[in-house]
Amino acid sequence: MFISFEGIDGCGKSSQAQMLAEALRAEGRDVILTREPGGSAGAEEIRRLLVEGAGERWSPETECLLFTAARRDHLERRILPALEQGQVVVTDRFADSTRVYQGVARGDLRELVDRLHDLMIMTEPDRTFVIDIDPATALARGKARGGTEDRFESLGLDFQEKLAKGFRALAQEYPKRVRLIDGSGNIADVAARVRAAL
Amino acid sequence: MFISFEGIDGCGKSSQAQMLAEALRAEGRDVILTREPGGSAGAEEIRRLLVEGAGERWSPETECLLFTAARRDHLERRILPALEQGQVVVTDRFADSTRVYQGVARGDLRELVDRLHDLMIMTEPDRTFVIDIDPATALARGKARGGTEDRFESLGLDFQEKLAKGFRALAQEYPKRVRLIDGSGNIADVAARVRAAL
Repeated sequence: MFISFEGIDGCGKSSQAQMLAEALRAEGRDVILTREPGGSAGAEEIRRLLVEGAGERWSPETECLLFTAARRDHLERRILPALEQGQVVVTDRFADSTRVYQGVARGDLRELVDRLHDLMIMTEPDRTFVIDIDPATALARGKARGGTEDRFESLGLDFQEKLAKGFRALAQEYPKRVRLIDGSGNIADVAARVRAAL
Repeated sequence: MFISFEGIDGCGKSSQAQMLAEALRAEGRDVILTREPGGSAGAEEIRRLLVEGAGERWSPETECLLFTAARRDHLERRILPALEQGQVVVTDRFADSTRVYQGVARGDLRELVDRLHDLMIMTEPDRTFVIDIDPATALARGKARGGTEDRFESLGLDFQEKLAKGFRALAQEYPKRVRLIDGSGNIADVAARVRAAL
């Protein structure tokens, strides 16, 4: 089973991915928890190029290629081997993030994203949870975290609002795979909603 | 005018690119000399991921994506702006290197290389010079240079021989654009052959 969590930065998806992985482990399942961009040694190196530095550091097209390169490495070296061994894979972000970030919010590149996905990735999670919260709240949380991985957050609230709309639209585009989860309230309430939807 | 030099590592193409750039400048032309992977700030960062480390660090597919990402950045940020200003661009490697290295020598990926090129690069040099020398000589020269950028050289002589064959085949595949240059003899002799072929 391959499960992804998606949503804007600061929406709480990383915590929810971790809580679900722990809950599944407590039930005796063999679970790996991973993330994108990154999740394998090579992909983590590509991640640094993507999440640090100035917002305009890469064109949207180059960014699509770098995300796809990182995803291909993550898939080959970590996700597929784990699935083949019967492990449950829980990932914080996967291809939907590229669809939304590059395809919807920047430069109308969705067709390019889809063509690169069809050529190089060709894999979807069995279930995807989009954690949906107010973009202003998410942005404030993300900024409070600090650190150097603020390249996307530096693009501002208007950008975050477009992203949130893009993530919501995924649930309509992929109704069998994607579940929209209300991300408001405390972390345990959200985890219960995820569990109920699984 | 957009000119590329191609060939295996140690064939002398970097010296030839530099000599041609200098000769054209001496005639009063405005020339930029660049190289791949790299040639722009972002692409040089991707270059480090490609030319350093173990030979099996990336799969051929991930490698194709990284080369294409570096090339897209180089093209957008350096080559196309220079051509638009009427400069001559001389580059040490371009898309043919990916065709040969990834497409011919590793994993029969030529179709994938071409599809990525058609989707993301869509640009060819006006003239390409392949510097053709004996692979054993080239490998010895490359090793004598030392340094940390030895990832492809570490793959050995058999690999270099396949590459040399792949580069020669380019001249047949693209007869209008690609010129095969005999790389034997001293550097000035080779430069004279390049100049005669331009």
